[in-house]
Amino acid sequence: MTLPSDLEIAREAAPEPVARIAERIGIGAELVEPYGDGVAKIRLGALDPAGPLGSRPRAKYVVVTAVTPTPLGEGKTTVTVGLGDGLNRIGRSTAVAIRQPSMGPVFGIKGGAAGGGYSQVVPMERLNLHLTGDIHAVGAANNLLAALLDNHLFRGNPLDIDTDTVSLRRALDINDRALRTIDTAVGPASEGEQRRTGFDITAASEVMALLALARSLPDLRERLGRIIVAEDRAGRPVTAEALGAAGAMAAVLREAAKPNLMQTLEHTPALVHTGPFGNIATGNSSVIADLIGLRAAEFLVTEAGFGADMGAERFFNIKCRVSGEAPDAAVVVATVRALKAHSGRYTVTAGRPLPDEMLKENPEDVRVGGANLLKQIENCRLHGVTPVVAVNAFPTDHASEIEAVRDLAAEAGVRSAVCTNVADGGEGARDLAAAVAEAAEEPSHYAPLYPLDASLKEKVETVARAVYGASGVSYSERAERQLRSCERNGLGTLPVCIAKTHLSLSSDPALRGAPTGWTLPVREVRPSAGAGFVYLICGSMQTMPGLGRTPAALGIDLDDQGRITGMY
Amino acid sequence: MTLPSDLEIAREAAPEPVARIAERIGIGAELVEPYGDGVAKIRLGALDPAGPLGSRPRAKYVVVTAVTPTPLGEGKTTVTVGLGDGLNRIGRSTAVAIRQPSMGPVFGIKGGAAGGGYSQVVPMERLNLHLTGDIHAVGAANNLLAALLDNHLFRGNPLDIDTDTVSLRRALDINDRALRTIDTAVGPASEGEQRRTGFDITAASEVMALLALARSLPDLRERLGRIIVAEDRAGRPVTAEALGAAGAMAAVLREAAKPNLMQTLEHTPALVHTGPFGNIATGNSSVIADLIGLRAAEFLVTEAGFGADMGAERFFNIKCRVSGEAPDAAVVVATVRALKAHSGRYTVTAGRPLPDEMLKENPEDVRVGGANLLKQIENCRLHGVTPVVAVNAFPTDHASEIEAVRDLAAEAGVRSAVCTNVADGGEGARDLAAAVAEAAEEPSHYAPLYPLDASLKEKVETVARAVYGASGVSYSERAERQLRSCERNGLGTLPVCIAKTHLSLSSDPALRGAPTGWTLPVREVRPSAGAGFVYLICGSMQTMPGLGRTPAALGIDLDDQGRITGMY
Repeated sequence: MTLPSDLEIAREAAPEPVARIAERIGIGAELVEPYGDGVAKIRLGALDPAGPLGSRPRAKYVVVTAVTPTPLGEGKTTVTVGLGDGLNRIGRSTAVAIRQPSMGPVFGIKGGAAGGGYSQVVPMERLNLHLTGDIHAVGAANNLLAALLDNHLFRGNPLDIDTDTVSLRRALDINDRALRTIDTAVGPASEGEQRRTGFDITAASEVMALLALARSLPDLRERLGRIIVAEDRAGRPVTAEALGAAGAMAAVLREAAKPNLMQTLEHTPALVHTGPFGNIATGNSSVIADLIGLRAAEFLVTEAGFGADMGAERFFNIKCRVSGEAPDAAVVVATVRALKAHSGRYTVTAGRPLPDEMLKENPEDVRVGGANLLKQIENCRLHGVTPVVAVNAFPTDHASEIEAVRDLAAEAGVRSAVCTNVADGGEGARDLAAAVAEAAEEPSHYAPLYPLDASLKEKVETVARAVYGASGVSYSERAERQLRSCERNGLGTLPVCIAKTHLSLSSDPALRGAPTGWTLPVREVRPSAGAGFVYLICGSMQTMPGLGRTPAALGIDLDDQGRITGMY
Repeated sequence: MTLPSDLEIAREAAPEPVARIAERIGIGAELVEPYGDGVAKIRLGALDPAGPLGSRPRAKYVVVTAVTPTPLGEGKTTVTVGLGDGLNRIGRSTAVAIRQPSMGPVFGIKGGAAGGGYSQVVPMERLNLHLTGDIHAVGAANNLLAALLDNHLFRGNPLDIDTDTVSLRRALDINDRALRTIDTAVGPASEGEQRRTGFDITAASEVMALLALARSLPDLRERLGRIIVAEDRAGRPVTAEALGAAGAMAAVLREAAKPNLMQTLEHTPALVHTGPFGNIATGNSSVIADLIGLRAAEFLVTEAGFGADMGAERFFNIKCRVSGEAPDAAVVVATVRALKAHSGRYTVTAGRPLPDEMLKENPEDVRVGGANLLKQIENCRLHGVTPVVAVNAFPTDHASEIEAVRDLAAEAGVRSAVCTNVADGGEGARDLAAAVAEAAEEPSHYAPLYPLDASLKEKVETVARAVYGASGVSYSERAERQLRSCERNGLGTLPVCIAKTHLSLSSDPALRGAPTGWTLPVREVRPSAGAGFVYLICGSMQTMPGLGRTPAALGIDLDDQGRITGMY
């Protein structure tokens, strides 16, 4: 089977006017701001309980998660899109919610991130480049805060900030390793005092995490004020509010707070909004987009990053707690190749084709690696949510291997379906759609895994043991100190976001399947007081990617009709 | 006279749907892409000679320039807007073209830049913040080039770039002095080799200058390829094309190449596009916007930055040469306060009120300072263009002083009119509109001041003597060397852009009026091969502003209805 390229497929699409897409889910013209070809923003009046959407019934809320992925990804976005299209095909009005891809990786390794094959969000060129500028706005708000902070230091430092404690970094939506660690103001004294800092990719900034978790514009404004940028010399947190920056930051983000509306190739409405990192942040699209989507269609399918131990865990324990919305079903995407990799017998590397050995028929490997699937199924059930397994079929899969995945699901008492939507569009996700519709009819017993009044350590311990399968948690001295400081500063009642590798249920990317008998090592603890969580760093987290030997940018150009080429 | 604040006035505006604004100047729905409330982009099909605008008669082309301004500015944008409104009021269909303001200074000293009083472009909040994201796109394209350059060095430097010659800097739309000079990659070796560089405000980047001078998307693509980022170790220029970056940069800029359409408070169409710096670049809005505007209305009023020696000189010798369009009239904005300041008897400081002494009735000071006005009038005539003096009246002006300005114009044989449009809207610019309409009927004898095949030194000499009133030009050794290098690299046939202070006709900001007997000192010469000019640095140019003691950002916020406050 050879599919045309994503770009070729996307170009042949016949998108509907985006206002008609909105209308189909009850979002009238008064709530829609067209924003260039094929894209609109939805006004925040859509959140108003007294507004046109306020009295509508709430949609069924479906989160799409996955087994622990290989570095190639398991097609969670394509399944999200395919499921949306499939539900619409079986007559259930559905919208999907996805994150806005970062532009940095588009020019790095990925070349694009809008789904794939016949399960794409269009126009893909706009989704991959700027869209409506929200990510740039997030960067601008973050960098305005940084400039105001450095200006505060330059102007005599009236807040008595301890410059050694400055945690705020600058942000750009780019892959640029040279900016990871920089010294600023190394010129004449008129530039201020030299300081060591760096840039993160904008998706890794707290402002992005915060925008994704805000419930409304006033809530956004308050959260911005709570961002902690440093400590003063007495050890007290210094906030964006104290610097006087939060109001201007909110002004910078006013348009970015409105979700973007696009469509799939089959005209399913796609809410695209925010793109927080999946390790140090939630890896989920925005609360605002979901709150609107839940009042619009009959089903809202939303995607959570990485495996169920990562994005879905934060979905259950952070995002849903903020939104107050309970999910009705969780789709766990599994692939034959991922489960084979979880057998521990193969190595899969990003940017390289699968090893030949792995393409041979071997259902036994699937069963061995299936331990990971079973754990991720359990991770949904732990939060009271009914899982459905989606087997995302690849042309290289063997029938016996796909059957092995379905057998695992059946043994766990879970519905399953095979998806061929990348090749077949929504038609290839009809079975999944039917299974999800059924599962969502079961009563939801959703509940977060831990109470907020537990100590931060108790929260970490709970997630580590119950979700990751760890036998315990260890803390560096620094982490212990930082934990105490968080509790002292009144941040002990926040949920936790554990930043570990996404390539293993454990904190060691080399451990496949569902490893047990290991200890989670917490190296550092940092407050994201504005976003509303404390994050714990377990392992080394790269917050500014670099470019590879042959960046995708080198192959991207315009053709003689001004169309973008080389993006896939 | 107390006017309501700009923001209050803007909020009371009743803007028309932007599609109707477009239609009024013959730009049909097929050429308009709505981009959020009150803003649209115009598709580049509007440039097509075979398209809907191709067969329309060409508008009269009016450039608005000024006397040498005080640090407070003389209201060139308000006169541009007022003149547009005034021409429409006297029944001449008119569009205006202005630059997009940088966001950096909005949070620094200015708080906003959308005109003022009853001569504003709306919605002012969007004009001041992001608009449609073009400036961010320019920064992203620039920074992609920088990341690809550093990655090239990191990957073994196959082009044999001499790292000491890297001239490309990174860009952000912010006022942030700490970023003026930075050391990158100061962390572990995996980040690459430490290098000294810095950030400019995006308006100062060559990509911005280039976007403003591109005639079409293919022309933009070619210009991007010609950007010189460094030299190799043999002294040959290394371009963005050689780095393989230009195609991806063009993709990043595809939407930004389309001009933005907004409106004045009186519904005059306003083309807002690009915002290159006025010292090291052209300080004019885009060629593309003007080419479209010239096929749309009966009059196109476009603004050139700073005094007639600065923006208008580049308009005549760079921009019009690129566009192939000849201006029909030049409006020279003069204020009583500027001419008084040019008497040399007062000091005007940015961010401070005028000295009390200066508010006293003193037409004699106006006449003394009037030497500056006479020289700037001559600077228009030097290029064969008929000047019209617009006296931008302030409430503190005395009638005798305004009369003194008009007398100066009359003595020079130039039409003049008093403008009160800031207080009165377009009605206050009716006289100016009538004078301009008359002047534009005279045959244009427009011609650039120098031929392109003159040497770079001859070009500089010509501008310095004829336009600035210098008695000669001196070159540093470095500048001499750089000049030879430019000529050797085939850049000798480019026009010149002389970066000097905008606060004097001379290169010394302290010299008022129309100083003579001085020498222009060229310190450095740099190619903007992509933009298409060579720029010569005379004095110290600040390409990254800083924030003041009390940045405007501290006063900006959202109110409880989500509206922006504190922007003026």
